[in-house]
Amino acid sequence: MTRGFYIGRFQPYHEGHHAMVKQIAEDVDELVLGIGSADDSHTTRNPFTAGERIMMITKCLVELDIVTYVVPIEDLERNSVWVSHVQSISPDFDVAYSNNPLVIQLFREAGVEVHQSPMFRREVLEGAEVRDRMVSDGDWETLVPDPVAEVVDEIGGIERMQMISETDANGG
Amino acid sequence: MTRGFYIGRFQPYHEGHHAMVKQIAEDVDELVLGIGSADDSHTTRNPFTAGERIMMITKCLVELDIVTYVVPIEDLERNSVWVSHVQSISPDFDVAYSNNPLVIQLFREAGVEVHQSPMFRREVLEGAEVRDRMVSDGDWETLVPDPVAEVVDEIGGIERMQMISETDANGG
Amino acid sequence: MTRGFYIGRFQPYHEGHHAMVKQIAEDVDELVLGIGSADDSHTTRNPFTAGERIMMITKCLVELDIVTYVVPIEDLERNSVWVSHVQSISPDFDVAYSNNPLVIQLFREAGVEVHQSPMFRREVLEGAEVRDRMVSDGDWETLVPDPVAEVVDEIGGIERMQMISETDANGG
Amino acid sequence: MTRGFYIGRFQPYHEGHHAMVKQIAEDVDELVLGIGSADDSHTTRNPFTAGERIMMITKCLVELDIVTYVVPIEDLERNSVWVSHVQSISPDFDVAYSNNPLVIQLFREAGVEVHQSPMFRREVLEGAEVRDRMVSDGDWETLVPDPVAEVVDEIGGIERMQMISETDANGG
Amino acid sequence: MTRGFYIGRFQPYHEGHHAMVKQIAEDVDELVLGIGSADDSHTTRNPFTAGERIMMITKCLVELDIVTYVVPIEDLERNSVWVSHVQSISPDFDVAYSNNPLVIQLFREAGVEVHQSPMFRREVLEGAEVRDRMVSDGDWETLVPDPVAEVVDEIGGIERMQMISETDANGG
Amino acid sequence: MTRGFYIGRFQPYHEGHHAMVKQIAEDVDELVLGIGSADDSHTTRNPFTAGERIMMITKCLVELDIVTYVVPIEDLERNSVWVSHVQSISPDFDVAYSNNPLVIQLFREAGVEVHQSPMFRREVLEGAEVRDRMVSDGDWETLVPDPVAEVVDEIGGIERMQMISETDANGG
Repeated sequence: MTRGFYIGRFQPYHEGHHAMVKQIAEDVDELVLGIGSADDSHTTRNPFTAGERIMMITKCLVELDIVTYVVPIEDLERNSVWVSHVQSISPDFDVAYSNNPLVIQLFREAGVEVHQSPMFRREVLEGAEVRDRMVSDGDWETLVPDPVAEVVDEIGGIERMQMISETDANGG
Repeated sequence: MTRGFYIGRFQPYHEGHHAMVKQIAEDVDELVLGIGSADDSHTTRNPFTAGERIMMITKCLVELDIVTYVVPIEDLERNSVWVSHVQSISPDFDVAYSNNPLVIQLFREAGVEVHQSPMFRREVLEGAEVRDRMVSDGDWETLVPDPVAEVVDEIGGIERMQMISETDANGG
Repeated sequence: MTRGFYIGRFQPYHEGHHAMVKQIAEDVDELVLGIGSADDSHTTRNPFTAGERIMMITKCLVELDIVTYVVPIEDLERNSVWVSHVQSISPDFDVAYSNNPLVIQLFREAGVEVHQSPMFRREVLEGAEVRDRMVSDGDWETLVPDPVAEVVDEIGGIERMQMISETDANGG
Repeated sequence: MTRGFYIGRFQPYHEGHHAMVKQIAEDVDELVLGIGSADDSHTTRNPFTAGERIMMITKCLVELDIVTYVVPIEDLERNSVWVSHVQSISPDFDVAYSNNPLVIQLFREAGVEVHQSPMFRREVLEGAEVRDRMVSDGDWETLVPDPVAEVVDEIGGIERMQMISETDANGG
Repeated sequence: MTRGFYIGRFQPYHEGHHAMVKQIAEDVDELVLGIGSADDSHTTRNPFTAGERIMMITKCLVELDIVTYVVPIEDLERNSVWVSHVQSISPDFDVAYSNNPLVIQLFREAGVEVHQSPMFRREVLEGAEVRDRMVSDGDWETLVPDPVAEVVDEIGGIERMQMISETDANGG
Repeated sequence: MTRGFYIGRFQPYHEGHHAMVKQIAEDVDELVLGIGSADDSHTTRNPFTAGERIMMITKCLVELDIVTYVVPIEDLERNSVWVSHVQSISPDFDVAYSNNPLVIQLFREAGVEVHQSPMFRREVLEGAEVRDRMVSDGDWETLVPDPVAEVVDEIGGIERMQMISETDANGG
């Protein structure tokens, strides 16, 4: 039995993430999705709460034929213990998947096998792109799976993002 | 659609918890299990990591006919914001279940509907009882669902608890 | 102009505190009341939030003929920087008042003048005594100024304390 | 009885803030001034300590005919619990006042009534403007109430800001 | 080249610690002494600051013919990442030495070689014994190396401990 | 006996630092080197762990004829208590040395004597310069003492820095 671990911030979970999950699902028997920066929300870069992201992801994973775990990972602001932190919060895993160079480096230094997918540049761009379109009333719905769009609507996500984008200071 | 939230430390997840989960499952369509004190482990009171507890619980929930979410909740050491913290990490829920008087009080003050089950005394006693039997090589296996015993064995949980019980100080 | 600083947890603010404040008011022109453990609440030892304690104290100070400041002080869990922490949160002060030996020692080591009042034993006992009577439906009202009793009633303080006293664990 | 809550960083408290306070004072019976980022100081953006800001504000409020509370609010770096945090540190309030879009959004999501004043752009610009003039020996005194200028002088605030502006790194 | 790591709280560094250091010095080429709970001080259990403990230890190690490092280790309050935390703060080491069962268990689970010395019971008792004698004006000087007694005298350590022992609450 | 305190991040310890240490060594009998931002690592600005920096520095100090202490100082993110924090972690010192304006200001406000060296601009530029050359495969070895280059090689420091420089986000 092989269990994989895929970490991302998923702000929001989009088609790029979903494609990568489907690809990983071919290699492993079980998959843990770690939601990074779980304690952050209501910022331009991290608009959605961990609970909202769990909803998005879980609804998208229903169609997959694989056992999945969705685990929020709070930041510790201390890179040197990050791998231990992840390992203690997550079910045990055999291989990690990431396109983030820092994450790859940290797993490697800790002796964890880590796989990189070829779509790194594209994924990062899409992440910022989705949020930009949300703020500017562009077409973001086509970049995310349908259940994600539904969650965003339910929670008033677009209004939240547009308000947040007007400020970058807490308390003025 | 009704979603319930049941919070516990699940150190470990035992038959008392499992009975309560099955009972709640009759009232709700979806159930969130919040793992409290998720950041604590390797202590007499909290021997298992969040990852280990996720494994225990997920394996036991397979048999249930209900959508479940298992969400680790780190302590914030600040009771006054605890409900907000839980609500931001968890999928949205309509009703909370707990037998812990502090938890009940905090939810009530925040205006969240909370249900109490009748087996409070018994459950608390069982929690400490399971851990005591683990330390003293007593019969703990009969107090937990089979998958929990398997996880405890796999991770060397009994040896860990017996070592920990010899100390109460970090660094001597 | 002399400004004094008087630190306490004020859980709740009682007649012992109030007598000490009146006594200090004869020595100084302005008085800062520092509310210790401001981030703690909903525990047996610290039942009331900082906001609730500010209300209790402010209403009692109205009758005094002295400029007062009421400042919540969050715990840093690090005794060696505690005095600096207090000095940065509080208006500048010339002399500190306390009956707590640790507080006195920390101020002394930092070179701050600190005065001790003669009623130490009595005050500590009263603090626990008021809370005990609240939990056991005893006569606590006579131990606190009237505005404190009103605040406790308004917020449902007795019910909260009685609930909290039934538990000592978060999440069971 | 209506109690209002007005949050700002007040770095420093200037004529824009003071005008808004006077305007709010016409709507409410009591007013809480929450000092945001209370734990931050000695930075370009947050030069003054909470204690220094309490002094500035309290001296300016003396002339007002309204009961006021000045409450330092430490950052929790977690937007999702920020409203609960504020509510636990502050006396209970009925309506919040802010021109900061994030603050408005957080209060709205928590169901708190929040009023926005029309002078947002101007206020933000003034905040940075006052600090810029302090650093460049410009005319900042005319932008703040007299008691604020006195506090800044007493604590050597201009020298502090000019030193801080030379660095943006702790420890080189 | 072999480097060893010996962790303790060293409150204070006493003859039991010193004997163990000399014994370890026969096995390794270099030795790291990790000062646990470095951020704690001015409590009955942890009376001395990290800086004071560094002074005590460094003065005692002068006589040893071995390269030593003395490294304060702050608590993270999270056992699952403790070994990673230690490894990132300390020079790299090949073997750890401890008599604390929790420490031993944590190092073992992380795959670090750990050696236990035979004098565990005695050492723990001595730790508490030294502090008890300090508080009760007993003969503690014979239990510690001379340089430790000198440091304790210089900093007024006995007066501090006797004051602290009178309280167990911050702020009364 | 005079003891000096020199604080820096030492990312990495380079010839500019080393020259300053040698210069300070002429004024004092003992020298404490405080490693700032000790808890930070694996970032573009702070690539090396505290343990790695202790190794670099200790190996370079061997040649000096002066008693030295190397003390990691974790960030508290609270400038107002920073001096107290440093004083509690470090052996007692009489004079501080720094070229960082914020550090100088904080020590001055706390009444600590602080000396500034004339090479400030050069040192800051060198710090960034060394890291830039490491990332771009330039000649960084000539900017650091030999033992530092050895440590960087041993730990795979160049590969780490080049990986890290490709990202500025944890978790994508």
